[in-house]
Amino acid sequence: MLGYFGPAGTFTHQALLTISKDEARPYASVVGALAAVRAGEVRGAVVPIENSVEGGVSATLDELINGDPLMIRREILVRVSFGLYVRPGTKLEDVREVLTHGHAAAQCRKFLAKLPHANVTEAGSTAGAAEEVAREGSRYDAAISARVAGQLYGLEELAYEIEDNTGAVTRFVEVTRPDTVPMRTGADKTTLVVFMAEDQSGALLEILEQFKVRGVNLTRIESRPTKKTLGSYCFSIDAEGHVHDARMAETLEGLARICPQVYFLGSYPRADQRAPKLDTRFSDESFTSATDWVASLDQD
Amino acid sequence: MLGYFGPAGTFTHQALLTISKDEARPYASVVGALAAVRAGEVRGAVVPIENSVEGGVSATLDELINGDPLMIRREILVRVSFGLYVRPGTKLEDVREVLTHGHAAAQCRKFLAKLPHANVTEAGSTAGAAEEVAREGSRYDAAISARVAGQLYGLEELAYEIEDNTGAVTRFVEVTRPDTVPMRTGADKTTLVVFMAEDQSGALLEILEQFKVRGVNLTRIESRPTKKTLGSYCFSIDAEGHVHDARMAETLEGLARICPQVYFLGSYPRADQRAPKLDTRFSDESFTSATDWVASLDQD
Amino acid sequence: MLGYFGPAGTFTHQALLTISKDEARPYASVVGALAAVRAGEVRGAVVPIENSVEGGVSATLDELINGDPLMIRREILVRVSFGLYVRPGTKLEDVREVLTHGHAAAQCRKFLAKLPHANVTEAGSTAGAAEEVAREGSRYDAAISARVAGQLYGLEELAYEIEDNTGAVTRFVEVTRPDTVPMRTGADKTTLVVFMAEDQSGALLEILEQFKVRGVNLTRIESRPTKKTLGSYCFSIDAEGHVHDARMAETLEGLARICPQVYFLGSYPRADQRAPKLDTRFSDESFTSATDWVASLDQD
Amino acid sequence: MLGYFGPAGTFTHQALLTISKDEARPYASVVGALAAVRAGEVRGAVVPIENSVEGGVSATLDELINGDPLMIRREILVRVSFGLYVRPGTKLEDVREVLTHGHAAAQCRKFLAKLPHANVTEAGSTAGAAEEVAREGSRYDAAISARVAGQLYGLEELAYEIEDNTGAVTRFVEVTRPDTVPMRTGADKTTLVVFMAEDQSGALLEILEQFKVRGVNLTRIESRPTKKTLGSYCFSIDAEGHVHDARMAETLEGLARICPQVYFLGSYPRADQRAPKLDTRFSDESFTSATDWVASLDQD
Repeated sequence: MLGYFGPAGTFTHQALLTISKDEARPYASVVGALAAVRAGEVRGAVVPIENSVEGGVSATLDELINGDPLMIRREILVRVSFGLYVRPGTKLEDVREVLTHGHAAAQCRKFLAKLPHANVTEAGSTAGAAEEVAREGSRYDAAISARVAGQLYGLEELAYEIEDNTGAVTRFVEVTRPDTVPMRTGADKTTLVVFMAEDQSGALLEILEQFKVRGVNLTRIESRPTKKTLGSYCFSIDAEGHVHDARMAETLEGLARICPQVYFLGSYPRADQRAPKLDTRFSDESFTSATDWVASLDQD
Repeated sequence: MLGYFGPAGTFTHQALLTISKDEARPYASVVGALAAVRAGEVRGAVVPIENSVEGGVSATLDELINGDPLMIRREILVRVSFGLYVRPGTKLEDVREVLTHGHAAAQCRKFLAKLPHANVTEAGSTAGAAEEVAREGSRYDAAISARVAGQLYGLEELAYEIEDNTGAVTRFVEVTRPDTVPMRTGADKTTLVVFMAEDQSGALLEILEQFKVRGVNLTRIESRPTKKTLGSYCFSIDAEGHVHDARMAETLEGLARICPQVYFLGSYPRADQRAPKLDTRFSDESFTSATDWVASLDQD
Repeated sequence: MLGYFGPAGTFTHQALLTISKDEARPYASVVGALAAVRAGEVRGAVVPIENSVEGGVSATLDELINGDPLMIRREILVRVSFGLYVRPGTKLEDVREVLTHGHAAAQCRKFLAKLPHANVTEAGSTAGAAEEVAREGSRYDAAISARVAGQLYGLEELAYEIEDNTGAVTRFVEVTRPDTVPMRTGADKTTLVVFMAEDQSGALLEILEQFKVRGVNLTRIESRPTKKTLGSYCFSIDAEGHVHDARMAETLEGLARICPQVYFLGSYPRADQRAPKLDTRFSDESFTSATDWVASLDQD
Repeated sequence: MLGYFGPAGTFTHQALLTISKDEARPYASVVGALAAVRAGEVRGAVVPIENSVEGGVSATLDELINGDPLMIRREILVRVSFGLYVRPGTKLEDVREVLTHGHAAAQCRKFLAKLPHANVTEAGSTAGAAEEVAREGSRYDAAISARVAGQLYGLEELAYEIEDNTGAVTRFVEVTRPDTVPMRTGADKTTLVVFMAEDQSGALLEILEQFKVRGVNLTRIESRPTKKTLGSYCFSIDAEGHVHDARMAETLEGLARICPQVYFLGSYPRADQRAPKLDTRFSDESFTSATDWVASLDQD
C-alpha cells in the first residue's frame, strides 16, 4: 500500500491517483508519511517536493536529509487548478456562501469578483471545504478545491481552472526505502544532497564545477541548514541524467571526493519525459572511447 | 519605537534588549513586525534571520525579498541558552511539574533526566510557560525558557545553560526602511538577494565568480523559491565587506550586470567584530592604484 | 618615416604599402626595426606578429615585452600569395631555372610540378630571388615571390596565387612609441602582456576569469618564457575591445590587481573591421547603469 | 645507441652524459635527432625542452607535436655554468684572446671585465670555441664553454661558474618511440599536447578546469601555433603525476572528451624527485572509495 501527505482530496492525493488507483493511506504530515515508509508500514509515499501551495516542501527536503536512507523512485507534476464545487443541483447564480482555504481564495480573486453575491469563508483546507459542502444541511453552497476533492465528495463542478494565473505546477515524488534504481529511460533526473566543508563560496563553486566539467546540468539547487551550527548548509540538488549514465556516475564520484558527505536520493524518469540536450562530448560513447584511449597509452 | 517578533520573553526579545532598553512593541509574526516597519508604525524591528529555534527565519527571508524595500542596519548574535525558572522560594527538589515548549524540552533532555520526579508539559511557547508559572496558584512549578522570560515574569533561576549542546547561536537583524548605510567599521557584512535567469547551474556559477574574482568571501548563501514558476529561485547572500569597500562596490556592479535583479539589503557591522582576512590584492589601495594605472594608459 | 622588417619586396613590405606609400626604411631584423622606433630614428615600424612565413614573430613578441615601452597602433592582415615573376618577354614554357626561398618552394609544390622542365634553386629570400632574376644576364628565368617584389624589380607576372593552399594570412602590426590611443571604432582589439606569480594552473585560470566575468573574448593567447627562471612564463594576449570600452578598462584593472605585472601594448582597430558579438550585459550602458545603481544605494 | 642535439661539448651533451657514458651520436639539429629516433637509427635522443641557452626548444616542442608519435621517458636538469678553458700551462694573466659564443660572452660580462687585457672573439658555438683553442698553434688563448667541452678537448679549467647570474637551469628530455611507460615513482610528471576548438578563452578555461577539479597541478603550459590557420593554437603542458595515478588518468579522459585532439607524450620521474603536495581528496584511495560508493548505490 502507498501512503501520502493527506488528507484525501488534496493535490498530493491527486498526484497519487495518477500513479495508482489502489487504496492508499493519508498521513497528517510529511514527517508522518515518510516515517511510515521507514517503518515499512507502507511500501512508499507520495509527498510534495517543490512549490506546493499546500506546504510540506521544507519538511520533505529535511526528512530526506535526516534519518534512515530513503529513495525517490518517481516524480509527478500536477497542475494546480481549482474548481468551484457544489452539491448536485445548485446553480451558479444561487451560490452565496463559498468555503475554501485562504491560499485558494487568494488565487481565485478574479473569478470570485464575478460572483458579486458570494461571501467567502476560510476553511482549514480545500479538501475540508469540499467535505463540509457535501454535508447535508451545510450552510455553505460551494467549495473551491482541487478537482479530486469535488469528485471524492460527490460534488458537481460548476467551473474549472478558475485561478487567476493558470500554469502553476507542483512537483511531487514517490519515496520508498532504498531499492534497485529505476531503469534508465534517457530522460531521467537524479536527486542528491551534498554537504559542504566550511568556506561557503569556494566550496559551492567547487561543487558546481564537478557538474559542469562533465556536462551535467542542474534543474534545482536549494540550500538547507544542517541544523548543526550557524552558517552550516547542505544543498539539495536535482541534476539531469541517471546514475547509469557515465557522466553522472563520474560526477557522483567527483562529489564524493570533495564533499564531506553526499547522499544519493535516487535516479528516476522525468515526469515531462523531456530528454536533455546532451552535448555529444559527454555521451556514454565519449566516456567509453576516452577510457579506451587512456588504457591504450601504456604499450605494455 | 522598535518592534520585534514577540511575544516578550523570547530570544528575539533578548536580542532586542542587547541594543535598546526602551519600550518596544511585540508583533505576533515576522510578517507583522516588518509590515509595521514598512507602514512607519515603528522605526525598526528585530527579527531572526538564521537558525532560530523559535522559527520565523523563512518568513524573514521572504519578507525581505517581497514588498517595499527594507534595510538591515545591524546584526545581533544570541546564544540559545535555557534556564529553569520558578516562583521565588521553590527549591529544585520540589519541582514536579515543568512547563515549556516542545523544542526546548527536546534540547534539555539530559537535564530533565536528572529530575526524576518531574513531569514535563508542553506549552505554546517558552515565554508563555514562564508567564503561566509566574501566575499565582499555577499548577506548574517551573518553566524552561530564555533568561529574559524568567526576568520578565519575576521568576528565580534555579539552573542555567541546561541545554544538552551548548554553543547554539541564533542570528537576528534590526530592519528599518531604506536609509543611510551604517558607517564602515572594517568588519562588516553586506546582505543581498540575487535573482537568476533560467539555467540554474550556469547562472549560479556566474554569480559566485563575480564575488571570487574580486576577493569577496560569502558567509551565507541560501536559495529561496521566487514563487513565480516551478524551478525559479533567488539567492539570499551574506558577504564579507561593506558597500563602501571598493571590492564590494565593484562586485555589486558586476552582479547588477549579469542578474535580472539584485536587491541590496544593507551593509552593517559584524556582531563578532571579526575583520576578514583580506588579500591585499583586493584592498581599496589596490583598486585605486589599478584605476590610476588604466587612467594613465592614454597619454592624451 | 616608417621602418619595417625588410628587405624590400617581402610580405612585411607589402603590409607597409597598404598603409603608406611614402619612402620607408627596411631593417635587417625585427630587433633592429623596433630599436629604431625606440631610438626615434623612425616614427614607427611594421613587423609581423602572427604566423609569418618569413619568421620574426617570436622576436616581435619578445621585443614588445622587453625594453622601453612600445605601442601597437594598427594591425594589417596580408594574404600570403605567391606569384611567378620573370623578366619582361619570358614565356611560361621557356622557364627552366626558378629561384626562390625554400619555404615558398614548399608551398608551391603543385604549381612547380606542372613545370616539368623547371629546376628550382633555393635563394636566401623570395625578395632576393626577384632581385636576382631582374639582373640582366641572370642565369635564372623566374622567381617565386610576393607580388610586391615582382613589381619592385620590374618583373612580369606569369602566374599568381600559385600556392597549394590559398587562404594563409599573416598578421602585421605598426608599432610606435607610447602615444595617444587610436580612437575607438567599435571593432577594436587590445594587446596585453600579463605576468604570472608562481603556480601556473591556478594563476592562468584566475587571469582568464578576469576576462570572462566581464564578457571580454580573447582572440590570441600565447605563452612566452620570461627568461628569468625555468618555468616562468608570461602571456601575450589579444582581446576584443578597446581600453575606452568600460568592460575592457575594468578587466585591465582586475588584471593589474592580481598579476605582478601587466603591460598594455595598445588598443587599435581590427583589420577585418568585424565588431564583436557583444553580450548587452557588458555594454557601456550596462556598466554605467550598474555604477549609477550602486551610487544610489546610500541614501545620504 | 642514443643520439643528441650536438655537437659534442654542449650542455645537451652534458645532459646526455648524466644518463649514459656509452658512445652517442650527435645530430646537427633537434629535427635531425628526432628524425633519427623515428627512423630507428638510434633508440632515443636527448634534446632541450625548456629555456636552453643554445636554442632548440621551439623545434623540440614542434617536433613532438608533428609527425609520428614519440614518447618522453626521462627529464634531465643541467645547471648552465660556464668555465674558462685553456691549453695546459696557460696562466690566467697570460690570457689575451678569448673565443666563445655571443650568448656566453653576454652572460659572463663581469668575469671578462676583470681580464682587462683580454679581447673577446665570437665563435659559432662554445663547443667549437673549445675545439679551436685546443688546436695546436691556435691564435686564441682561452675558450668560455661548458665544462664538458673543456674536458672533451683536453683543456685546463682556470675558472668555473663565471656567469653573472648563477642558478640558470636548462631542462632536457630523453625521447624514444612509444613504448611501455616508465614505472610510477610517486614523483612524476606527465607531458601532453592539447588542441583547442575555435574560441580561445573559453576553450582554455575548460581545459584548465579539467585539471583543477581533479587536483592535478601544472608545472608548464606553453602555446604553440598549429600552423594550420591564423589564430589556431595548441598547448604543450607538463602536469604533476603519472598516467597510472587515478587523478591523472581521469584528467586525460576528461581532456579527450572536450578537446578535438590530445597527445600523450609520456609519464616519467621528475628530475628533482620532488613529490607533489597531494591533497588527499585526490589520492588513489579517494578515487577507489568513490568508485566503490557509486557502484554500491544500485542495490540490485
